[in-house]
Amino acid sequence: MSRGGASRARPAAPVLSIRPTAVRLIGKESVITDSTPRTVRELGEFALIARMNGGRSQSAGVLLGPGDDAAIVAAPAGRYMVSTDMLVQDRHFRLDWSSPEDIGRKAIAQNAADVVAMGAAPSAFVVSLGCPADTPVEFVDRFVEGLWREAHRAGGSIAGGDVVRSPLLVISVTAFGDPPDRPVLRSGAHPGDIVAVAGRLGWSAAGLAVLAAGIDPAKFPEIVAAHRVPQPPYGTVLGMPADAPITAMADVSDGLLADLGHIAESSGIAIDVDSDALTDPALRPAADLLGADLTAWILTGGEDHAFAATFRAGQPLPAGWAPVGRVGTGSGVTVDGTPWTGPVGWESFAEGG
Amino acid sequence: MSRGGASRARPAAPVLSIRPTAVRLIGKESVITDSTPRTVRELGEFALIARMNGGRSQSAGVLLGPGDDAAIVAAPAGRYMVSTDMLVQDRHFRLDWSSPEDIGRKAIAQNAADVVAMGAAPSAFVVSLGCPADTPVEFVDRFVEGLWREAHRAGGSIAGGDVVRSPLLVISVTAFGDPPDRPVLRSGAHPGDIVAVAGRLGWSAAGLAVLAAGIDPAKFPEIVAAHRVPQPPYGTVLGMPADAPITAMADVSDGLLADLGHIAESSGIAIDVDSDALTDPALRPAADLLGADLTAWILTGGEDHAFAATFRAGQPLPAGWAPVGRVGTGSGVTVDGTPWTGPVGWESFAEGG
Repeated sequence: MSRGGASRARPAAPVLSIRPTAVRLIGKESVITDSTPRTVRELGEFALIARMNGGRSQSAGVLLGPGDDAAIVAAPAGRYMVSTDMLVQDRHFRLDWSSPEDIGRKAIAQNAADVVAMGAAPSAFVVSLGCPADTPVEFVDRFVEGLWREAHRAGGSIAGGDVVRSPLLVISVTAFGDPPDRPVLRSGAHPGDIVAVAGRLGWSAAGLAVLAAGIDPAKFPEIVAAHRVPQPPYGTVLGMPADAPITAMADVSDGLLADLGHIAESSGIAIDVDSDALTDPALRPAADLLGADLTAWILTGGEDHAFAATFRAGQPLPAGWAPVGRVGTGSGVTVDGTPWTGPVGWESFAEGG
Repeated sequence: MSRGGASRARPAAPVLSIRPTAVRLIGKESVITDSTPRTVRELGEFALIARMNGGRSQSAGVLLGPGDDAAIVAAPAGRYMVSTDMLVQDRHFRLDWSSPEDIGRKAIAQNAADVVAMGAAPSAFVVSLGCPADTPVEFVDRFVEGLWREAHRAGGSIAGGDVVRSPLLVISVTAFGDPPDRPVLRSGAHPGDIVAVAGRLGWSAAGLAVLAAGIDPAKFPEIVAAHRVPQPPYGTVLGMPADAPITAMADVSDGLLADLGHIAESSGIAIDVDSDALTDPALRPAADLLGADLTAWILTGGEDHAFAATFRAGQPLPAGWAPVGRVGTGSGVTVDGTPWTGPVGWESFAEGG
């Protein structure tokens, strides 16, 4: 991987009707000069890898970065956290809706959030990129810039990766983190605990709805930006005092009800959320314009990568956490004491999904 | 990721002319019963993840396996090796040439070889799978079986992953290993060192040529098998005594000349290989039938994941290593003292590649 792009592939005649896609970019003006090769085919794999790694400083935890068969990362606690996600073009991002920087930032953010959701500080990431041979070098430059920007924000660096040819853009990120003495699992919630959320909910779903409806993104710039690049509140989680009364945590990637459902199932408890605690007036104008259900955005919209957690009652919540519900005995997640009748969140292989 | 498949995706209208591909399987008879859901859409993402993880035992190094936001892996040495690779359908494997088990084994083997090429013992892997919604559950079952079989062979287990919907099959593997006290880098070769190889060279290229020519695989079963599933000699590397006089190492994924080129460049030395030491009579019948250049297969065929290394002269080579050349001053790789004029190996974005 630190070799970074050496595909072990062999040429093979295509047997399927997949045509390479044209990659067109949106976002800020090009920084490419006339002498820059225009496509990754022109530049070549090994020059591309050198370009992706050039001029970057690894974080202290990366003991050996790109350039050999494998990277070496420090694990001062004697163990490390690992989380991985794949993003597929037109499924997890659209080139007409997101800039290359946005896509890079989102790919890192959603993986960093998984590591932080265990209470661990991100240390490093490895990234594989599959792309058509006619992908503009500018796309890769700006995508890599987005990767690094979010990696720095989360507290790590890009320790290596792979670049391969693919008929459409595919991105795979694996994130690493240094675990705390006591990782925060999904399975620790107890009846009586307070359910709380750090970060925004429903913003990404609202931004998607604005884009899908063809509304000018400039009408709701913050909401659309939240869809393009999630902003997990890493610091709110990692800044909690070591004796914070947290009992369970997950990041909200599939939707609040779905992810609280994972906590409920893992912990063998029930959760009831209070819809009044979950409204967000900032989303109201977009919901009204679109005739959308604001509560559904907040309860079932994923991808904001907020954090949902449970805390022992009777102690103040750490800074940045807002109470939204209560843990009880039983199983499942209810809203204001009654079952939620709509869809609860994302399912990869469902018809709509 | 140990959550394993929770895509943070949102539905998005396709904007490109990519049609999902039909996944057809070759290989051993189906073990699926009538009551098994036929496709991953029918089964559903979360049931699929449960099925992929069911009945498996993690290796001792995996402290927390699938089921939370991240896995936790032990790093007894206080640091860990990381390598990652992406495999794309029809680019790195073909469903009409390889069984699902083969594809799973190959995906793990090529990543495990990168970790072993640093002298590190594989400990764990995470795997992301992108696949069409109509992918047979049987494909996933058999692919996962292949992953686990090769992971066990390499000495690790599958600690987590992700499953997402994709119009074609895409696999991303990240491999982890426990570094030895002194990792074997590419940069340690010195003039006078002996160049040696452990494992087979040219077999994968020969097997590909047999398949591509439409020759009945039964005529060359071992050679075709070598293309479908590389057999890196993990034990030959990991079984070397701690005081073995090894100075540099790489796995042969791009072709011997290309990968020795990486060692030469990293070490600032020249390498000359002896073509007589590199012939392989077992490949001769296939080369003769196809009118192929046997030497080119051996010198430039990748994907066998043999290991190439340099050793201090004057000491016996460890068991399983065959001398194939010599390190000198200068730069670049020559064959019998002269430059190689053909292509040296794989390049992801080249026209033929």
